[in-house]
Amino acid sequence: MRYAVIGTGAIGGYYGAKLAHSGHEVHFLLHSDYRHVLEHGLQVNSCDGSFHLDKPLVYANAADMPRCDVVLVGLKSVNNHLLPTLLPPLLKKDTLVVLIQNGLGLEEDLEQRMSMPDLRLAAGLAFICSAKTEPGIVNHQCYGYINIGNYSCPDLQLVEEVVSHFNAAGIDAHTVEYHEARWKKAVWNMPFNGMTVALNTQTDLLLAHPATKQLIYSQMLEVIHAAQACGVENIDETFADKMIYNTEHMTPYSPSMKLDYEHRRPMEIDYLYTRPLQMAREAGCPMPRLEMLEAELRFMQQLYLHP
Amino acid sequence: MRYAVIGTGAIGGYYGAKLAHSGHEVHFLLHSDYRHVLEHGLQVNSCDGSFHLDKPLVYANAADMPRCDVVLVGLKSVNNHLLPTLLPPLLKKDTLVVLIQNGLGLEEDLEQRMSMPDLRLAAGLAFICSAKTEPGIVNHQCYGYINIGNYSCPDLQLVEEVVSHFNAAGIDAHTVEYHEARWKKAVWNMPFNGMTVALNTQTDLLLAHPATKQLIYSQMLEVIHAAQACGVENIDETFADKMIYNTEHMTPYSPSMKLDYEHRRPMEIDYLYTRPLQMAREAGCPMPRLEMLEAELRFMQQLYLHP
Repeated sequence: MRYAVIGTGAIGGYYGAKLAHSGHEVHFLLHSDYRHVLEHGLQVNSCDGSFHLDKPLVYANAADMPRCDVVLVGLKSVNNHLLPTLLPPLLKKDTLVVLIQNGLGLEEDLEQRMSMPDLRLAAGLAFICSAKTEPGIVNHQCYGYINIGNYSCPDLQLVEEVVSHFNAAGIDAHTVEYHEARWKKAVWNMPFNGMTVALNTQTDLLLAHPATKQLIYSQMLEVIHAAQACGVENIDETFADKMIYNTEHMTPYSPSMKLDYEHRRPMEIDYLYTRPLQMAREAGCPMPRLEMLEAELRFMQQLYLHP
Repeated sequence: MRYAVIGTGAIGGYYGAKLAHSGHEVHFLLHSDYRHVLEHGLQVNSCDGSFHLDKPLVYANAADMPRCDVVLVGLKSVNNHLLPTLLPPLLKKDTLVVLIQNGLGLEEDLEQRMSMPDLRLAAGLAFICSAKTEPGIVNHQCYGYINIGNYSCPDLQLVEEVVSHFNAAGIDAHTVEYHEARWKKAVWNMPFNGMTVALNTQTDLLLAHPATKQLIYSQMLEVIHAAQACGVENIDETFADKMIYNTEHMTPYSPSMKLDYEHRRPMEIDYLYTRPLQMAREAGCPMPRLEMLEAELRFMQQLYLHP
């Protein structure tokens, strides 16, 4: 089975390299790092064992890539407007496209943008601390498991096969129910991504201060209630307690939006906030604290992107 | 009639100096500036005409001051725990104490702290841009009017008399209904004081960006709905439009909490947020966005007061 990776960064680079390292044919699309990786290969420094791909199959243009069975999308979602150009050269009629991205509404929007009603989409929910620190180097610090939620692939065997490839490559992977998985991830992502930016801090300090711990908890309840209003049944308020507890026992962490903010890159506000907030409002269950957080993030981003 | 000023800063210093300049006997309590003002007097640089008090009646200790007919309190409300010590030496049985401070619940709390059921209290709502920039110098940039809301003074003539003294001293002053006035001021204060701190900005930029303008508007509606739930009748949603319009046509402004933040002084979170939020919850009308803002401010203040 032939894999492609669009967006060879901290996420796409890690999972693609693991699959390639375990023997799969993986075609990597690169942008700024193309020349470097072509010459020096791809290095993965990982808590699970480091390795180097000497001659990965790398491309600077999607049009030069072969058609593949599975496309892993590791782009930041702020670049999803590029997908209708990047994806078509890679697609056969039964290619599975896995969006390993944060947020809600990603698959729905892509389906509309591509105007391909038969496009086979799945969500990849990565629980991983990794970063691309220099060209061609992925640093994987901890965690690493990935859940795959099928969105529109009628061939359930194909999804299971991808999951088994991940597992064979040393990545803990499972299939999950799409809506439940995306909303559950939002329960953690929506409070912590934005609040670490708004208060220029990390997860541990937010939970160490009673006022912000209570706020994070209230924001998690907003997401849980919105998920319930949107028809996700298998979630209740105890999930917030569990997320708080897990985060308190985690290494102090800067979520991806915090890293984007620190490097003055565009933040993934649309899919982490705007779309879920819209879904919640349409379901009659607005999330006022997270609406406020979205406004704060928009204001902050405007100041550094368009000073 | 004999006046005292407790807290001779940007507010107490300005109004007290105006009354003294118009011929009233005004006794000023000072803290850090005592020695300077004793030697050099008090300078008011004002858009309405600057003047200098050569020999103001100044004191370093409240115990040395005479009993007065009216006490103007210009302290920051973070210091209100000092009032049960500072006030008694100045009080006759019918002294009127005017709290020229921002927030809600100030008079109620002081009444309880002092355990003097007959204490005559009024609120002073100052609409003024002024700052104490150096020892003994008050800079009054613009506005300056003050509304007096009677809280517990049975002698309505006395309140009217104070208002007439302010007017005679060149200060536009009026009597207003206590609860309505304090809540109406909170409609402006609660959004703008905290948001200029949380986003490290000024009033004009908050209103120039559509996301934060909408947020400020939503926060104003939270205060208006809470005021209604607390029994304030003469306020509706059009008041938010009016406040937004006025602020858009005002010089870009850093509210007092922003100045406290910039100078790493304690912020007036208790009376500007905690107490009104508590009143709103008790009236069954919580203010979630302003609860979030309170948590952000507590977090920020903790970092600089107790790093």
